[in-house]
Amino acid sequence: MENEHISKAFDIELNFLRQSILIMGGKVELMIADSVKSLVERDTVLAERTIALDHEVNAAEVAIDEHCLELLALRQPVGRDLRFITIALKIVTDLERIGDQCANIAKRTRELNEEPPLKPYIDIPRMAHRAEIMVKEALDAFVIGDADLAVKVCNDDSYVDDLNSQIQRELLTYMIEDPTTISRAMKLNYISKSLERVADHATNVAEMVIFMVKGKDIRHMIA
Amino acid sequence: MENEHISKAFDIELNFLRQSILIMGGKVELMIADSVKSLVERDTVLAERTIALDHEVNAAEVAIDEHCLELLALRQPVGRDLRFITIALKIVTDLERIGDQCANIAKRTRELNEEPPLKPYIDIPRMAHRAEIMVKEALDAFVIGDADLAVKVCNDDSYVDDLNSQIQRELLTYMIEDPTTISRAMKLNYISKSLERVADHATNVAEMVIFMVKGKDIRHMIA
Repeated sequence: MENEHISKAFDIELNFLRQSILIMGGKVELMIADSVKSLVERDTVLAERTIALDHEVNAAEVAIDEHCLELLALRQPVGRDLRFITIALKIVTDLERIGDQCANIAKRTRELNEEPPLKPYIDIPRMAHRAEIMVKEALDAFVIGDADLAVKVCNDDSYVDDLNSQIQRELLTYMIEDPTTISRAMKLNYISKSLERVADHATNVAEMVIFMVKGKDIRHMIA
Repeated sequence: MENEHISKAFDIELNFLRQSILIMGGKVELMIADSVKSLVERDTVLAERTIALDHEVNAAEVAIDEHCLELLALRQPVGRDLRFITIALKIVTDLERIGDQCANIAKRTRELNEEPPLKPYIDIPRMAHRAEIMVKEALDAFVIGDADLAVKVCNDDSYVDDLNSQIQRELLTYMIEDPTTISRAMKLNYISKSLERVADHATNVAEMVIFMVKGKDIRHMIA
C-alpha cells in the first residue's frame, strides 16, 4: 500500500516533467516559426517578441533541471525511469540552445529589416517549417517513447541540410554577381545556418530517444 | 565497516569518471590545436588525422554516459555526488560537440589547402589557442570544483567573440574588394565561427561548474 502510494506519486511527478518539457518545447517551436515569420513579413516587433521569449525558455531549462535533480535524489529511480530523467536533463539543454539560435535569427532579422529585401524568401521558411516539425516530433517521440517517430526525425535532417547547402550556393551567386549584396547575404547565410543547427538539435534529441527506447546507442552511427 | 567499503569503492569510481572526462578533454583539446595547425601549415594529412580522432571522442561520450547511468543506478548518490554526475552527463555532450566543430574545421581546411592561401592567418590561431585553454580550464575547474577558475573561463569568452567579429569584418572587406576571394573567405568565416562555438561550449561547461560548486545557477545571467 505504502509502495503503491510512492509509485503513484512518482508517476505524477514524471508526468509533470513530461508536461513541462512539452510546454518548453511549445515555446521553442513558436520561436522557430516567429523568428522566420518576422523575416518574411519584415515584422521587427515580432522579432523583438521572439528575442524576449528566449528568457522564458532559459528559465524553463533551469526549472526542469532542478526538478530532474530532485527526482533523482528523492526517488532514486532505476532502469527506464532513470534513463528517462537523465535524457530529460540532456534534452532541455538542446531545447535551450534552439531558443538561442532563434533569438540570433531574430537579431539578424532586425538588422535585415532596416535594408531593402535581397530576394523573396522561399527556402528559408521551408527550412524553418521542417525544423519546427522535427522539434515537435522529437519531443512527442520522447514523451510517448516512440522510436519509429524518432528515426523519422533523424531522417528528416538531411532535407534541412540540403536546403541549407542550396541556400548557401544561391547566396554565393548573389555575392559574386553584386558585391553590394554581400552584407545582407551574409546575414541570410547566418540565418540559414542557424536553422540547420536547430534541426541538428532536434536530431540530437531524437537520437537520445532511440537510445532511451531501444537501450542502444545510435548516436554517431548516423553519419 | 561495510559502509566505509562502499564509500571507498564509490570514490574510486568517481575518480575514474573524472579521469575519463579529462582524457576525453585531452583528445578534444588536441583536435582544436591540430585542426587549426593543419590550416596554418597547410597540412592535409593532419586535417585527416583530426577528422579521424572525432570517432574516438564520440566513443568516449557513449562510454562515459553509460558509466554515469551505472553510477546513478547502483550507487544512488545524493547531494554533491549526484550533482557532479548529472553535470558530467551534460559536459560530455559539450565535449563531443566541440569534437564535431573541430572535425568541421578540418574538413574546410582540407578544401582550403587545395587553393592558394587567402592571407596569413594570425587571429584564427589566436582564437584557437584561447579556446583550447578555455576547454582545458573548464574541465580542470570541473574535476577540482574550482568556481573561480570557471568564472575566468566565462570571462574569456568575450575575447574569442571579439576576435571572431574582427575576423568577420576583415573577411567582408576582402570579399567586397575582390569577389574571387568569396568562396575562400566564406570557408574561413565558417572556421572562425566554429572556433567561437568551441569557446561557447567551454563557457557552457564553466557555467555548469559554477552551478555545481555554488549551487546556484548563473546560466543565462551572463549576457
